[in-house]
Amino acid sequence: MALTYTLEAQEPAGAARAGRIVTAHGPVQTPAFMPVGTAGSVKTLTPDELLGTGADILLSNTYHLALRPGVETVRAMGGLHRFMGWQGTILTDSGGFQVMSMSPLRKITDEGVEFRSHLDGSRALLTPEEAIRIQDGLGTDIAMSLDELVESPSTAAEVSEAVDRTLLWAERGLAARQRLRDEGRGSMALFGINQGGTDPAERRRCFESLGAMPFDGFALGGLWVGEGKSLGLEMVAHDAAMFPVDRPRYLMGVGHPVDMVEAIDRGVDMFDCVLPTRNARRGTVFISTGRLVVKNAAYARDERPLDPDCDCYTCRRFSRAYLRHLFAAGELLGMRLASLHAIHHMIRLVRDARAAIVAGRYAAFRVSFLERFHSGETLVPALAG
Amino acid sequence: MALTYTLEAQEPAGAARAGRIVTAHGPVQTPAFMPVGTAGSVKTLTPDELLGTGADILLSNTYHLALRPGVETVRAMGGLHRFMGWQGTILTDSGGFQVMSMSPLRKITDEGVEFRSHLDGSRALLTPEEAIRIQDGLGTDIAMSLDELVESPSTAAEVSEAVDRTLLWAERGLAARQRLRDEGRGSMALFGINQGGTDPAERRRCFESLGAMPFDGFALGGLWVGEGKSLGLEMVAHDAAMFPVDRPRYLMGVGHPVDMVEAIDRGVDMFDCVLPTRNARRGTVFISTGRLVVKNAAYARDERPLDPDCDCYTCRRFSRAYLRHLFAAGELLGMRLASLHAIHHMIRLVRDARAAIVAGRYAAFRVSFLERFHSGETLVPALAG
Repeated sequence: MALTYTLEAQEPAGAARAGRIVTAHGPVQTPAFMPVGTAGSVKTLTPDELLGTGADILLSNTYHLALRPGVETVRAMGGLHRFMGWQGTILTDSGGFQVMSMSPLRKITDEGVEFRSHLDGSRALLTPEEAIRIQDGLGTDIAMSLDELVESPSTAAEVSEAVDRTLLWAERGLAARQRLRDEGRGSMALFGINQGGTDPAERRRCFESLGAMPFDGFALGGLWVGEGKSLGLEMVAHDAAMFPVDRPRYLMGVGHPVDMVEAIDRGVDMFDCVLPTRNARRGTVFISTGRLVVKNAAYARDERPLDPDCDCYTCRRFSRAYLRHLFAAGELLGMRLASLHAIHHMIRLVRDARAAIVAGRYAAFRVSFLERFHSGETLVPALAG
Repeated sequence: MALTYTLEAQEPAGAARAGRIVTAHGPVQTPAFMPVGTAGSVKTLTPDELLGTGADILLSNTYHLALRPGVETVRAMGGLHRFMGWQGTILTDSGGFQVMSMSPLRKITDEGVEFRSHLDGSRALLTPEEAIRIQDGLGTDIAMSLDELVESPSTAAEVSEAVDRTLLWAERGLAARQRLRDEGRGSMALFGINQGGTDPAERRRCFESLGAMPFDGFALGGLWVGEGKSLGLEMVAHDAAMFPVDRPRYLMGVGHPVDMVEAIDRGVDMFDCVLPTRNARRGTVFISTGRLVVKNAAYARDERPLDPDCDCYTCRRFSRAYLRHLFAAGELLGMRLASLHAIHHMIRLVRDARAAIVAGRYAAFRVSFLERFHSGETLVPALAG
C-alpha cells in the first residue's frame, strides 16, 4: 500500500474526524495543515523549522518544479525529499491549477492542457499521464490526479463537461500509475479530485464514478473559487457525506483558520493554503484572537509578542515592536519570523482540533475557537513607556 | 571600567595577537569578526543563529537606527540588545560614515556634519556630542567617536584638516560621554579613530594627540577607501606599531578573508564588513578554497555543500544544487542559507587565526591559509548522475 489511513476518532455529534495517514515518509496526523513549498521551499523557512512547528506533511507544486529546476534535475539529486532536505511526507499537486492560472495561454482539450511557461514562454502540453510521470519523477508520496476546474459562476454545460473530462483524466492517471508500477516505479499514493462546481447533483454524479476508482484518497475540487463561503461549506458537507470513511479527504487551497475549523466540522482531513505565509510576508498574521497587521505603525512600541498565547520561536523571542520595525525597514528577517509564526499557528490549530475530536468535544472547541477568533483581543496596540 | 582588554598571546615572529575584551555583555575573543546588523538585524538571520556561529559581538549602524525606528523607540523598548534579542556585545559606529556616504547633502564644519535623511529628506546636524548621545541611547557596549574620513586620493591639506577635525571631535566626544556619566549614564566604552590617510607622518601626528586621550580602544580609519591593498596594509602596520598594546585595535570596514589574515598578521584585533553577507545575498560566498558563485548554472547538479570543509548548518544540510535552485527561483531561503554560511565562515576564520596565535604558529597558518584560499579547489562544478 502506498498509503494507509486509520480513522482514530469521530465527533459523536458531527462529522469531524481524527485520523492518521502513513506514507513511505512516515505518519501524518489528521486533520492536517500542509504548508506550501511552491518551488521546493516553504518561503523563507528551513525544513528543520517546519519540523519544529510540528508539520509532518508539505505540499509542493509540480508546475513550478517541472519548469525550474526541472524534474530530471530533482530526480538526479535523489528526489524532492533529499533535494530540499525534508524527510516528512510530501504531497504534490497535478500542475493543472497552476497551468490554468499562471499560463499566458491555455487550451483545454480531452488530450490535456496546452500552455506556455510563465518563465520563458515555451509551449507544452500537460496530459493526465504526464502529470503522473512528473510527480513520480519528483518522488512525491501523494500525487494528485489532473482535473479540470471551473470557476464560479459557470454554466451547467461547462460544469458538466468539466466533470466528464475530470473523470476521463482520472482513469488515465490511474492507468499511467499502473504502467509505472509495472516498470517498478509509481509507488506513490494517488488522490482523485471531485468536481461539479456548486451543483450537488453534478458533484454526486462525479463521485459515483470517481469513488469507484482505486484512489488512495479524495479531494474536494472546484471550491473556494468565488462561490461564497456558505455555499462552499454546503458542498463540503455534501461531498464528505458521500466520500468513503476509510480514505482521507482533502479540501484544496483552503487555509483561513475559520474556514478550516468549519470544514473540519464537516468531515475534512487535509488542507493547504498559501494565504497564511503570503500574508505573513506582507506583515499580517493570524493570531488566536484575529488578524494582526503587525506592520502598522501603531505597534511601533508594543512589547507584546505577535500572539501572547503562542509558543512559537517568534512569539517567545520577539516583540511586535521589533517585527514592526523589521517590516518598516524592509528587513527579510521580518518576513521570516512572521512566516514561522504563521505556520506554527496553523499546525497548532489542527493539533488542537484533533485533540478536541479525540476527546469528543469538537462542537465546543469550534464555538470557543470562533468566539475567541472574533474577539479581537490584544489587537488594540499597547503603548509602552 | 566600560571595557577590559587582556592580551593573551602574541606571535613571536610578528605582530599577530590573541586577546579578550570584556564588556557589560560578556567576553569577546580577539581577533574578532563583527557581523553587521545595519538596521538592528544581521540581514536574514536570527540572533540565535548568530550565536550558533560563535559570534560574540555585532556591529550596528547608528545612522540607520537613529532614522528608523529612532533612538527614543529603541530606548523605550529597553535598548538595542533587548529590542533585537541579542545578548552579546554590540559595537555601534558613530553614524559619520553613513551620513557622509548616504546623504544626498553633506556639509562638514567644525560643528559637525549637516545632512539630509536618505529616507525622508529631512535636514539634521550630526555633532560629535550627538553621536555619543545617540549611541548611549541605543545602549551600545562600544561607541565610536565621530571622525572625518577623507577619500583616496586627497590633497595633503584635506588630509591634515580632517586630522585636526577628527582630534577636535574626539575630545568633544569624550567630554560628552563624561557629561553623560555625571548624569549616571554613558557607561559604554568609547573608541577613538586614527586618521591621516596614507601619509604616515599625518597618521603619526594624529595618534600623538589621540593616543593621549582616555579612549578604551582605537580604530584605524580612512583605509580601504581606494588606496590599494598594499598601501593599506602598510598603514595598518604603521598604526598598529604605535597603538598601545593594552587596548584593542579595530580596522573598520575590512572583511575580505585575505585582508583579515594580513591585517591580523600586522596586529589588528577587530574587523567588520558587510561584504560577506552582501555577497551571500547575491549568491556568492567565500569558502576555504576561494570564492564560490553558487548561483551559477554550472552548480545545478552539484551535490557537494558550499564548502566541503565547513560544518555550518547550510553545509551540513544542503547541496550547491539546492542553493543554486533557490537563487535561480528567487527564493529568500537561498539568501538566508548563504548568509548563515558566510557569517559562520568568517567567525571560524578568526577563531582558527586565534588558535594559531595562541599556539605560536600564526606565520605558518597565514601561509597555508593563503595557499588554500588561492587553490580554487572544489570550485570546478561536479556533475552528478
